[in-house]
Amino acid sequence: MKSDIQIARETPLKKVKEIAERIGIERDAIHNYGPYMAKVPLRLKKEEKIDRSNLVLVTAITPTKAGIGKTTVSIGLALGLNRIGKKAIVALREPSLGPVFGMKGGAAGGGYAQVLPMENINLHFTGDFHAVTSAHNTISALLDNYIYRVQGTPREIKEVLWKRVLDVNDRSLRYIVTGLGPGNGVPLESGFDITAASELMAILCLAEDEQDLRRRIDNILLGYTREDKPFTVKDLGVAGAITVLMKDAIHPNLVQTTENTAAFVHGGPFANIAHGCNSVSATKMAMSYGDYVITEAGFGADLGAEKFFNIKCRKSGLQPKLTVIVVTAQGLKMHGGTPEKAIRQPDMAGLVKGLENLSKHLENLAAFGQTVVVAFNRYGFDTDDEIGTVAEFCRQRGIRFAVNNAFTEGGKGAVELANAVVDAIENEPSQPLRFTYPDDDSIRTKIEKVALNVYGARDVVFSEKALRRLNRIEQSPLSAFPVCIAKTQFSFSADPNEYGVARDFRFKINDIVINQGAEFIVAIAGEMMRMPGLPADPQARRIDLVDGKVEGLS
Amino acid sequence: MKSDIQIARETPLKKVKEIAERIGIERDAIHNYGPYMAKVPLRLKKEEKIDRSNLVLVTAITPTKAGIGKTTVSIGLALGLNRIGKKAIVALREPSLGPVFGMKGGAAGGGYAQVLPMENINLHFTGDFHAVTSAHNTISALLDNYIYRVQGTPREIKEVLWKRVLDVNDRSLRYIVTGLGPGNGVPLESGFDITAASELMAILCLAEDEQDLRRRIDNILLGYTREDKPFTVKDLGVAGAITVLMKDAIHPNLVQTTENTAAFVHGGPFANIAHGCNSVSATKMAMSYGDYVITEAGFGADLGAEKFFNIKCRKSGLQPKLTVIVVTAQGLKMHGGTPEKAIRQPDMAGLVKGLENLSKHLENLAAFGQTVVVAFNRYGFDTDDEIGTVAEFCRQRGIRFAVNNAFTEGGKGAVELANAVVDAIENEPSQPLRFTYPDDDSIRTKIEKVALNVYGARDVVFSEKALRRLNRIEQSPLSAFPVCIAKTQFSFSADPNEYGVARDFRFKINDIVINQGAEFIVAIAGEMMRMPGLPADPQARRIDLVDGKVEGLS
Repeated sequence: MKSDIQIARETPLKKVKEIAERIGIERDAIHNYGPYMAKVPLRLKKEEKIDRSNLVLVTAITPTKAGIGKTTVSIGLALGLNRIGKKAIVALREPSLGPVFGMKGGAAGGGYAQVLPMENINLHFTGDFHAVTSAHNTISALLDNYIYRVQGTPREIKEVLWKRVLDVNDRSLRYIVTGLGPGNGVPLESGFDITAASELMAILCLAEDEQDLRRRIDNILLGYTREDKPFTVKDLGVAGAITVLMKDAIHPNLVQTTENTAAFVHGGPFANIAHGCNSVSATKMAMSYGDYVITEAGFGADLGAEKFFNIKCRKSGLQPKLTVIVVTAQGLKMHGGTPEKAIRQPDMAGLVKGLENLSKHLENLAAFGQTVVVAFNRYGFDTDDEIGTVAEFCRQRGIRFAVNNAFTEGGKGAVELANAVVDAIENEPSQPLRFTYPDDDSIRTKIEKVALNVYGARDVVFSEKALRRLNRIEQSPLSAFPVCIAKTQFSFSADPNEYGVARDFRFKINDIVINQGAEFIVAIAGEMMRMPGLPADPQARRIDLVDGKVEGLS
Repeated sequence: MKSDIQIARETPLKKVKEIAERIGIERDAIHNYGPYMAKVPLRLKKEEKIDRSNLVLVTAITPTKAGIGKTTVSIGLALGLNRIGKKAIVALREPSLGPVFGMKGGAAGGGYAQVLPMENINLHFTGDFHAVTSAHNTISALLDNYIYRVQGTPREIKEVLWKRVLDVNDRSLRYIVTGLGPGNGVPLESGFDITAASELMAILCLAEDEQDLRRRIDNILLGYTREDKPFTVKDLGVAGAITVLMKDAIHPNLVQTTENTAAFVHGGPFANIAHGCNSVSATKMAMSYGDYVITEAGFGADLGAEKFFNIKCRKSGLQPKLTVIVVTAQGLKMHGGTPEKAIRQPDMAGLVKGLENLSKHLENLAAFGQTVVVAFNRYGFDTDDEIGTVAEFCRQRGIRFAVNNAFTEGGKGAVELANAVVDAIENEPSQPLRFTYPDDDSIRTKIEKVALNVYGARDVVFSEKALRRLNRIEQSPLSAFPVCIAKTQFSFSADPNEYGVARDFRFKINDIVINQGAEFIVAIAGEMMRMPGLPADPQARRIDLVDGKVEGLS
């Protein structure tokens, strides 16, 4: 089969103004970034249409090293729906440059289910990540300048919580000392996270409009003063300037799929220490013009879907009509104990055992009140027997099942899935969301409810540091925020090697991070990587410009 | 008078496609970034037109704290030329975000002589600076990853020359230690420069096309191995990936002036440790469509014009027909010893004494073979007497003189200047450039010729470190490169407090930096700041978004 970039290049693109016009947006109302990408102004959201649109979340079983193809299924489903005459739009996260040059080589779908122009989307796109990087580091410079100028006074900053960000995989920047040498400020232990982990990225994805953006920026907690008072961006007096740096970034980006249907690709917060969903504004913009809107959430359903419901939907009022959960035979087999090198061969025992992982996710999704369709993302080496077994598993539980072939066939390969999705929404839509916890639970209780009821933990223990921070929060209005638990994506537990379903485990919270602007409390379980490193043979060595064309993105 | 941003906002903009069409570029050949900014593909350069276009360099006397207004005069002159029926296009550098949020608040001209949309040009613009930041730091991450993986082997890197960059004024990042903590790479002393100081920015501004860009990136010297072998981007094997990150950035940006004439704004290398001119490609693109092209070079004529001629013109084959040197009464008085607080009051003695500074610059420009027009950039408090004195000074020397009023009057205020420029070009154009040194002089001789013949130094002394590096270079093909001397912009000498004309001084070179990709050798005189800091009351505190409009840029 052709490579992703080959397929992308051979797909005739339509002008983005035409894409806009087709879904009902006036062509001159959008702002082009070249012929095939555009920003759609926030004012073009239509609340009355949003209420009538059918939102579908695409999530997955617990991911394994084999990959699941959630983005490909999301795009494929939108293509399939358009094939059967529905007006469907997909809303996705933007890829991060760091991983593109490190391991992944791209994150804009795959095969015949991609968003295009993939070589732009995977690179600088419309500059949203750069705007976040720039805004974040401008706060850092202003903060360090403030620290430098007030040192030795009562306004001195005692504890600094804010670091810097870059959209690059650079392990050398994780832990650094800044401000060395005469005249160069105050020496501080610090570090860089990847831009996707910036609180500003989470804010971009949750802000409803410019006013809300500014309000949230004002609230960002940067540290504590000598008198233990919180010190925020408002205290620095620069929220206006930071809002200005993000004024274009907050408008959703319109691009197209491999079948020239509309796609909004906007925002890319990390799925562990942030909530891992595209922007609320992109989802709502898509819902303003599409009867069906397909969106995804990062990692497996325990992480991505949980945060999508408990954070993104709670804050924005979104109500998904349906959740699609993606499974692969490879993934199920790995959860069932099949050794990694054998997962392309049939192993029915492993596959059946692996269904326990799917089963637990189905149970969780039911608890949220969601109707579910299981999408089997087909690879060439999957057998009919394997597909039949998963189909039968679903049939017995009264859950709709469909095979997805969009990677190799585009929308044609997702018609079965599209029909299952329409049938479910028309005949058995999800109930109103039942959140895992109410706003007025304490942060500690919220964490415990997620760990026990979603992950399946026996109990939760908190480190001394976490408890100290929790005590500070529980007395304040911050305790009304939802929690965003940062744990490994490879297991229900905090142990990345525990495949399948973990049971009866003790869940440990090491640290608590206050995202006062994004309005959630991050609870960190285990060591969370906020700045990836590069592999021994980085993808950058295979990316090139040949005759004006980009090679090496996939 | 109204603020810059007020004037900018009240100026009705034309669509950039219309601006393109008016100068003869097909409207669909350009790539829009919103309605008012576009990238013009490099392939639209027209060599035969370039040879016939009249290139005018705008430079200045030695700058003082009072400011000179070179960009305003450059834009004003283009406006004035268009007023008198000439097809004139201005080509300028892009502003850097760091200083915009620090001291300056903007760098896109002023008053009624601006390039627009100024609030975009002063912020993210078309993402060129972000592309350079991203490309530079991707090299850094790949290099540190390489160092981490080869440590302890014979391929070990002994000396690292490459740092990181950010487009922010952040003194805390000047000198840092990276790679701390277990698993986070190799601890290294390092630092961040501002993006304008990146060698990639200089390369962007000197590259003729994509192939040349890639070749130069391959050549960037990153360090030396344990066996003292140079280690380049080619050795890392990632020039292709870095070229991909800069593939859009290399195309010139088209915008418009306050009078809706075309302006190319592209590239922004530092004017001290780099050559301080907009890109060769923007100048050539402007010359492909304009009969008169106005461009500027950073700082005073000793730095900016010297590098424009000896580096940019030498490398690109450009031949300016004329140089305009900007003077202000304030600037002349400061050079003549008038105390800073009194420069807005008349002080004829100070002004006359200050003309020595202009005189020395005129002498230098004559040595390059340039015909010169002196442009007196008028401020409200300047007297007719002062103007008359400078005019008479020029008349006695047979040099054309004109007053510029474009700041307050737009093109109408630059008609006198435009007429003088046209008259000079038609009747007495510059001779072919006489460079300060031939390519085959040694680097040491090149430095000495610039210091003695342009700056007026008595002799040059080199530090031990500089000599060590020079010895390495003189034996190699690198000695054919031109030199880029980094010295203070505030004096002919290396002492920023020495106003007027310095004479008979000893000029000291502390360090030598090899820019193997940009293809020049930087000789550093004195302490050169590559990363600015923020003032006690940064401009960021006054920048805001009010009712969707940006405030606080000037």
